[in-house]
Amino acid sequence: MEKQEVKVMQKILRANERVAEELRDEFAARGIFFLNLMSSPGSGKTTLLQATGLESDMQLAVIEGDVETALDAERLAEAGIRVLQINTGPFGGDCHLEASWVRDAARQLDLDGIDVLCVENIGNLICPACFDLGTHINAVMLSVTEGEDKPLKYPLAFRTSQFCIISKTDLLPHVDVTIERLRANVHSVNPDMHIIEISARTGEGVDTWLDWLRSQVAAHR
Amino acid sequence: MEKQEVKVMQKILRANERVAEELRDEFAARGIFFLNLMSSPGSGKTTLLQATGLESDMQLAVIEGDVETALDAERLAEAGIRVLQINTGPFGGDCHLEASWVRDAARQLDLDGIDVLCVENIGNLICPACFDLGTHINAVMLSVTEGEDKPLKYPLAFRTSQFCIISKTDLLPHVDVTIERLRANVHSVNPDMHIIEISARTGEGVDTWLDWLRSQVAAHR
Repeated sequence: MEKQEVKVMQKILRANERVAEELRDEFAARGIFFLNLMSSPGSGKTTLLQATGLESDMQLAVIEGDVETALDAERLAEAGIRVLQINTGPFGGDCHLEASWVRDAARQLDLDGIDVLCVENIGNLICPACFDLGTHINAVMLSVTEGEDKPLKYPLAFRTSQFCIISKTDLLPHVDVTIERLRANVHSVNPDMHIIEISARTGEGVDTWLDWLRSQVAAHR
Repeated sequence: MEKQEVKVMQKILRANERVAEELRDEFAARGIFFLNLMSSPGSGKTTLLQATGLESDMQLAVIEGDVETALDAERLAEAGIRVLQINTGPFGGDCHLEASWVRDAARQLDLDGIDVLCVENIGNLICPACFDLGTHINAVMLSVTEGEDKPLKYPLAFRTSQFCIISKTDLLPHVDVTIERLRANVHSVNPDMHIIEISARTGEGVDTWLDWLRSQVAAHR
């Protein structure tokens, strides 16, 4: 990075941090569990949130981040989830979300009776990890098809998260990956990470996810 | 993006474009086919380059971009490929490569007798597409496990590429994706895209890839 670029970046990150702290306090005060879900493109974030909307009694609202299209927001709305789409395409195709954009989106959502407000971040394992969105927990999802080495190659997303969802476990018999090595690599960059395994396709592990979510809702009441 | 951010970005992109044009001319003059390979994390770029090193008579050199680790460079070196690793982690964890970094890396590689110089870009379907590296062709790889909608959601990488590799086709029986819809979505954002399908795991389609690469080497002699 050039000096001028670093300076602008530092200014943006400081401003972002201020808004993030406000949001964290606001949702704590309102008793809403505020969650940031990050991953590579196509790891299965939307599919898991869809299942959450359909299968749980928790009230879920989602701020959906994408460069272009409202495809994911449409899928979530069909599952009965209150959703607001942010498209960064018009603003230069930004590769991440910032706290002020999330704040503006949250203002447009009806959050009455909502238990969980989830930000489905833009599919990108690098840039979103630089921006605190004021969420109570950062979760990072990694599908088994992405390979065992990703926590080592993209450590920031794993260092800044407290919860890791290993997804698409139904594909394990067909890829050269073991859960043990994947878990070991996650823990080598973040020893305290809470890891669960799911297959939204077969439903395996979705109960474990819903139990965790329920426990977080209770803890943030 | 903020005004100040846009200004810095424009300056960086203009400087990048100048270096990119120099590199494009340089490798054209040296008769080396210069290729940029982009994708999400874990789509299979390294595995395909490994197979290329092992199975073809073309001489391949690779500039390997990663935020952290030299894992991919080690895999390529084992396949007899001349490789130089760029890690952006020390420079703020940059999410893309720029032409000047590629130029500096190329200066450190022995390119005598090389047919193809490939940049294996950082695993990210957004940011790398903003930076022209001076390559003769941009290729974008997309694994079938990432879902059919990715060309629509991340269009810039597909608009700025001329060649698309659909990877991990051996997993098609296990995911809710059809090649026809994937191809249609790629062509909807870039009607001229040349698309091939491969499974580096089973070897299916690798010959088609090598034939294409050979034709590009001949065209850039």
